[in-house]
Amino acid sequence: MEELPGALGTSGSLALRLGQAIFAVGSLLFMCLDVEFYSYTAFCFLVTIMGLVIPWSLTLAVVDVFSVFIRRPSRQRGILSIVVIGDWVLSFLSLAASCSTASVSSLLLASEGFCIGKLCTRYQLSAAMAFLSWFLSLSSSLFNLWLLPSV
Amino acid sequence: MEELPGALGTSGSLALRLGQAIFAVGSLLFMCLDVEFYSYTAFCFLVTIMGLVIPWSLTLAVVDVFSVFIRRPSRQRGILSIVVIGDWVLSFLSLAASCSTASVSSLLLASEGFCIGKLCTRYQLSAAMAFLSWFLSLSSSLFNLWLLPSV
Repeated sequence: MEELPGALGTSGSLALRLGQAIFAVGSLLFMCLDVEFYSYTAFCFLVTIMGLVIPWSLTLAVVDVFSVFIRRPSRQRGILSIVVIGDWVLSFLSLAASCSTASVSSLLLASEGFCIGKLCTRYQLSAAMAFLSWFLSLSSSLFNLWLLPSV
Repeated sequence: MEELPGALGTSGSLALRLGQAIFAVGSLLFMCLDVEFYSYTAFCFLVTIMGLVIPWSLTLAVVDVFSVFIRRPSRQRGILSIVVIGDWVLSFLSLAASCSTASVSSLLLASEGFCIGKLCTRYQLSAAMAFLSWFLSLSSSLFNLWLLPSV
């Protein structure tokens, strides 16, 4: 089996997973810390999805750490399919969440009296981090999809 | 070459393309007719993307009509790749546009004084139609991706 950088069990995949988790945590921090996010549906959606992305990415990062540093387990087609579909669904959901957050925060920024201090900038940063997390998640999904027929 | 329903050049694909175009036109009509949509970024984004989806889907529908009713041209790998990538990009863009529109319209619905009459219901219907168009576009993309290795 050829070694595809970014596929499950390689150091490239570990970097992608860590990137996803870091960006998702950053997005959550910008959104949740000291902000009443739960009065807007789009922000609740973002928090929910980022709360799903973090455990998913960390779990797969642990698998990658095990695979890189200890012992490469044999790849199984069923497990790889589940990983591809999970990445897929999460990437769609995080794209939807980041776009919703970005549009709502730009609307709030345009209307007077909503953004006290740098509140809307924080919303926008949160959306940007969710967008980066989406991009890395899509990359993981594509790399694993590419590997799938050869397993 | 086996016949996959929904792949380029079949009647299933024709139905998918017509569905995409009809939903995109419906979304545009609900958004544009008698509404000042251009004061919101998300709505302008939706109108732009739906304006891209309509010619793309109609062009491929014409290809399907030619292929179904007149003569099946031989599928070429390069053309099929372009179709898959185009569907792919447009499906991501229309998902982003529909989610942005949905979140902005629900925000406008929640705040007082913005929705005169049934304005926000129209925005929501437009977002729903863009969402359906996304779903059909994703289906087309997946069917053609499935066909791609066998060409």
